[in-house]
Amino acid sequence: MSESAYPSVTDLTLEEKASLTSGGDAWHLQGVESKGIPGYMITDGPHGLRKSLASNTGDTDLNDSVPATCFPPAAGLSSSWNPALIREVGEAMGEECIQEKVAVILGPGVNIKRNPLGGRCFEYWSEDPYLAGHEAAGIVEGVQSKGVGTSLKHFAANNQETDRLRIDARISQRALREIYLPAFEHIVKHAKPWTIMCAYNKINGVHAAQNHWLLTDLLRGEWGYDGIVMSDWGADHDRVASLNAGLNLEMPPSYTDDQIVHAVRDGRIAPAQLDRMAQGMIDLVERTRAAMSIDGYRYDIDAHDDVARRAAIESIVMLKNDDATLPLRKDAKIAVIGEFARTPRYQGGGSSHITPNRMTSFLDALAARGIDADFAPGYTLDLAPADPALETEAIAAAGRNDVAIVFLGLPEEAESEGFDRTHLDLPAKQTDLLRRIAAANPNTVVILSNGSVVTIRPWAGDAKSILESWLLGQAGGAALADVVFGDASPSGKLAQSIPMDINDDPSMLNWPGEEGHVDYGEGVFVGYRHYDTCGKAVDYPFGYGLSYATFAIGDVRVEKTSANTARVTATVANTSDVDGAETVQVYVAPGKADVARPVHELKGFEKVFLKAGESTTVTIDLDERAFAYWSERYADWHVEEGEYTVEVGTSSRDIVARVPVALDGDGKTQPLTAWSTYGEWSADPVGAQVVAAVADAGERGDLPKLPDNSMMRMFLMTMPVNSMPMLMGEGGKAITEFMLADYARRTA
Amino acid sequence: MSESAYPSVTDLTLEEKASLTSGGDAWHLQGVESKGIPGYMITDGPHGLRKSLASNTGDTDLNDSVPATCFPPAAGLSSSWNPALIREVGEAMGEECIQEKVAVILGPGVNIKRNPLGGRCFEYWSEDPYLAGHEAAGIVEGVQSKGVGTSLKHFAANNQETDRLRIDARISQRALREIYLPAFEHIVKHAKPWTIMCAYNKINGVHAAQNHWLLTDLLRGEWGYDGIVMSDWGADHDRVASLNAGLNLEMPPSYTDDQIVHAVRDGRIAPAQLDRMAQGMIDLVERTRAAMSIDGYRYDIDAHDDVARRAAIESIVMLKNDDATLPLRKDAKIAVIGEFARTPRYQGGGSSHITPNRMTSFLDALAARGIDADFAPGYTLDLAPADPALETEAIAAAGRNDVAIVFLGLPEEAESEGFDRTHLDLPAKQTDLLRRIAAANPNTVVILSNGSVVTIRPWAGDAKSILESWLLGQAGGAALADVVFGDASPSGKLAQSIPMDINDDPSMLNWPGEEGHVDYGEGVFVGYRHYDTCGKAVDYPFGYGLSYATFAIGDVRVEKTSANTARVTATVANTSDVDGAETVQVYVAPGKADVARPVHELKGFEKVFLKAGESTTVTIDLDERAFAYWSERYADWHVEEGEYTVEVGTSSRDIVARVPVALDGDGKTQPLTAWSTYGEWSADPVGAQVVAAVADAGERGDLPKLPDNSMMRMFLMTMPVNSMPMLMGEGGKAITEFMLADYARRTA
Repeated sequence: MSESAYPSVTDLTLEEKASLTSGGDAWHLQGVESKGIPGYMITDGPHGLRKSLASNTGDTDLNDSVPATCFPPAAGLSSSWNPALIREVGEAMGEECIQEKVAVILGPGVNIKRNPLGGRCFEYWSEDPYLAGHEAAGIVEGVQSKGVGTSLKHFAANNQETDRLRIDARISQRALREIYLPAFEHIVKHAKPWTIMCAYNKINGVHAAQNHWLLTDLLRGEWGYDGIVMSDWGADHDRVASLNAGLNLEMPPSYTDDQIVHAVRDGRIAPAQLDRMAQGMIDLVERTRAAMSIDGYRYDIDAHDDVARRAAIESIVMLKNDDATLPLRKDAKIAVIGEFARTPRYQGGGSSHITPNRMTSFLDALAARGIDADFAPGYTLDLAPADPALETEAIAAAGRNDVAIVFLGLPEEAESEGFDRTHLDLPAKQTDLLRRIAAANPNTVVILSNGSVVTIRPWAGDAKSILESWLLGQAGGAALADVVFGDASPSGKLAQSIPMDINDDPSMLNWPGEEGHVDYGEGVFVGYRHYDTCGKAVDYPFGYGLSYATFAIGDVRVEKTSANTARVTATVANTSDVDGAETVQVYVAPGKADVARPVHELKGFEKVFLKAGESTTVTIDLDERAFAYWSERYADWHVEEGEYTVEVGTSSRDIVARVPVALDGDGKTQPLTAWSTYGEWSADPVGAQVVAAVADAGERGDLPKLPDNSMMRMFLMTMPVNSMPMLMGEGGKAITEFMLADYARRTA
Repeated sequence: MSESAYPSVTDLTLEEKASLTSGGDAWHLQGVESKGIPGYMITDGPHGLRKSLASNTGDTDLNDSVPATCFPPAAGLSSSWNPALIREVGEAMGEECIQEKVAVILGPGVNIKRNPLGGRCFEYWSEDPYLAGHEAAGIVEGVQSKGVGTSLKHFAANNQETDRLRIDARISQRALREIYLPAFEHIVKHAKPWTIMCAYNKINGVHAAQNHWLLTDLLRGEWGYDGIVMSDWGADHDRVASLNAGLNLEMPPSYTDDQIVHAVRDGRIAPAQLDRMAQGMIDLVERTRAAMSIDGYRYDIDAHDDVARRAAIESIVMLKNDDATLPLRKDAKIAVIGEFARTPRYQGGGSSHITPNRMTSFLDALAARGIDADFAPGYTLDLAPADPALETEAIAAAGRNDVAIVFLGLPEEAESEGFDRTHLDLPAKQTDLLRRIAAANPNTVVILSNGSVVTIRPWAGDAKSILESWLLGQAGGAALADVVFGDASPSGKLAQSIPMDINDDPSMLNWPGEEGHVDYGEGVFVGYRHYDTCGKAVDYPFGYGLSYATFAIGDVRVEKTSANTARVTATVANTSDVDGAETVQVYVAPGKADVARPVHELKGFEKVFLKAGESTTVTIDLDERAFAYWSERYADWHVEEGEYTVEVGTSSRDIVARVPVALDGDGKTQPLTAWSTYGEWSADPVGAQVVAAVADAGERGDLPKLPDNSMMRMFLMTMPVNSMPMLMGEGGKAITEFMLADYARRTA
């Protein structure tokens, strides 16, 4: 930042520095007017711009904002498995920020969907951190390529809405490192967001905003982050502690900058720490200056709507398509049933709720195609009881057409930021209606609109085809028409498992916590890591999704590229006469491991578009991390020596090839101590020499002989050697002392 | 202890005091010879006396001991649900101790069977702490009624064998209080054991032997324990820390009493602490003095064998009895198949392994009845491959008789102290043989011999009747013959669930831990608390067991006896023409609760013996604890106000009556603070007045008006009031300050 247009922090007074560490109002940086540092605007995202029209001191209505393009929320976009497409979305959002003079758009949110009941699942990406990180990176790269900042959020472990401002998320270091942090880590290291938003919650006893380990040791120290950290709105409860922990910016301001000034004066804040935090703010302004200096910019609304439409197409997951019911013939007589067809649910509620600049419902899209559908709303978009008149009308419509397209989904009141769901079911009135429609017309297609997973099995028998369309943004109606009529083949893949029953999810035993804390008792066994490891049936597995095309994956090869890395290659052929896309998924299955590891984990993927009959080769590199687990013993990633299996497939349960690869391991070992077991001594190269010397001394009579019956040998092998006296009295004590001395001599 | 025959600790030198805090050798107290304090012997239990014949400085063979009566290990005895019978076993063991001059017998072990793979499940009681505590108390009461001490073990949370000397059991305070400690707590408070043995493992980071919270704050402070704590053999790794924590006695001695002397001299141990620990040892010797002074005592071997036989009968659980195959006619032609019929497995391996003074196999028992059974061993008692010759012989025997009694079970090498199992299955050669026998003779009865749960469903279709006989001690053969021929009706009830699949057990995700720790991630959801709460199928539920008789439970009444207690009464009728016993089980189901509670928990039981046609009334009192959960917020037990359901049944899944009872609650509340949510303020009596005052001030214009749209109201209600500024800027800050001041004024 040497060429900054702005003064350095050293040019500012103490009060000016302090002022930089809180907002000017709810949606602006404070800046330092007298020194020419502007107070740029920052606004909510993350699937479009929510530039509030409300007062600058706080929102009273989150739905009142400047029109913007509404892209598919992460619930949909995550099913695309297409980072390049996601980057396009980011670029478009960046352009809208330039027009609206917004320096930072708040997003993406990459918290893990620990439990599908989470109220904010619709704006998070996946149950898998690799997928979440590699997809959401596209948003950061796209927005920032336009000179506008992003804010990666909510850092970290904000996995539920219940009691979110107070809850203490108690998580093992291993689960943090393997599940809850890697999406953040990947994006910080590779996409380099300019800002990060800390979470509301506590992590292992300390609020994220005050968590020095999180914001400084880990984020800046281990990951090399060079941007600023802002608080989630209202997450900063202690200005001094937070600033010391590494929080640059309190949002919205609590008008307590004087606390910072006092704390520097009385030594509770080191001047250098305030300088670092304030300089970060100046650097952020500098980074966004060029884009914020562009006047009169107008983004291309049509082009952005097209991005939203393409993104929506790839967000749709086809779960079922019996009898090739889809795509529909263009001249089919169609009943369209369900209020969602006319009044789409295209985004979730809360801070991400934006005002779209255009809106195409499915009915609009049909009209644009010149199709005069026989529409019946069937039900109202709420949790009120069924309306028999609407139902009768809908069933009649179904009966008099070739096919019934039935829109089902969650009404807005069923899911939102601010609360968690209590069950996974669609409203009973909708599934009841579906049953009656299916009886009237067996050619029934269901299109789902929901931000978070719903149970499907209870009513799946009533649908020949099912499209899970999640929330698709403003162009969802057009995208659905493209898919329904075969102008595009569905290519979405589930970014989360669809369980049979929410009680199959092991996080339920600790959901959503109690008395101010939530224990992440399932550890690393989140989503398919649980279902696949424990062999539990799911309704639809992670990574699953059908296409109109068919594909063959073959010639899978795994080549070791160094001691602990490998390259996977495979051919993918479109074996049909329809264009389409397949996503090659690479899972790594550890062999025998010192810790309980998931049976396999996603470590690479590539989506390939293939015209009918076309084929191609994909290449996916697996780095050392792809094979590692987080070792609490070494406080580091650890790759064990041994055989791993690389799995290539099209879902976590559709593996087409398994190829073994033997890794050298990273060579990490621990020195032997009195607390190492006799078995561990025997397995260690030097320890084995000591063990042999003990036996020799026993033969010579210099030491007691070790017990030789099988029970005592079993006890011996599993006992730390400091327990020899328990087994053998004073003679055992002599053996322990001999072993420690002999080991010290041999390793000196 | 004012009339002690021994000097007080104040009469001893520092060195003598120190010497009392470790053993004299592996199986003796040290005593102080010069002051007349004897070094009494203490030996292993817990289902009989294991007085080692080995050298006094350590065992080299755990199987080398003085003959004693081998009673059923806890795996069996726990199925009796009969504390009075268990007390008889304790009395008999106490008498054997007197004869053998053993002052303390080490047991019972009341650790919870967290996971059925645990290697020591055979010597623990239950997955349920209420049952474990109320049954094992009988052992303590019985032994100590004879003037001999018991040692309640392994205190605490020693729930696995894997890495047991080092593992750190990380358990929430609530799971400790509700699951892992109550059996200890009940016995300490009601049966008052004279000694307790600490566990090997760490609990939340601190070894049990050095755990001041466990050994002093909780055990002596909260529970009022007045006995001594000894180390498990080799569990004391730091004499000074352990003594300071409240450990009276190191076993076996590490010959480091000088460390205690030095530590007192340099102030690391307070003299008063050493005095307390040493005086405890003198008090223990005093307590056992009378019994140890009896010379020439001889216990009645026949009478004890009869106790062992009666205990064995009540340990047998009949799981299945299609077509009333059992009991057998006394003149039936019987094939007896399985080596276990000739070579019974009647106890587990490890420190509890005793040398029986008598042994009746099933074949012995048949011979005693004059029955010449057609016996074929069928397989060998190991994990070696099947022997086709043995199989052919067995199948032929089955085919030529009226009925085939097939003994199946776990060979000794499959389960023992010292290692955990890795699966629940019987050896495949046994179940393969059973399938072929069932084909040869459909009247097949299976008798199981196993210390820990085995899966039954895979082969249950091959057996008309199944008796789960666990390990039955020396009289098991006679007891089985009594049951098989109907001289006794089976009356055992499962003390643990038999799952479909070990992966249904939520502890599997953290079993047996890794890198030195094990997270008890399932919290309180152990055994049926998980299966019943999550509605997961089990093969046989907790509390289940069939009888030859039939029973009717009726007239269930629940009467409130005080604000938070109740009395349950019910009639039980034997509706058959066979004598038998039924166990009435009382479960408490909480209503709406502030924490995640199991759907129901066992809080009372009574086993009643009823002759054919007889009936009786049972009365079971439920104390306040029966309704309470452990609140981490209050750091205390907490009974919420509201409606609870009392369930009466014959297993956790066979509930015959559900009666609601409304409790007043214990009135615990928390003061409101800035961290209480607006919803909590609104629900509190005083807080509601403050909330009303805020609204009034809003109307008057003295404070800003609160937001009124539904999303903002939802945010508001779930937000701590210190977050008002986030929602409303500086006006919100004024509201928060008003609320805190107004509350202070109203509660002043």
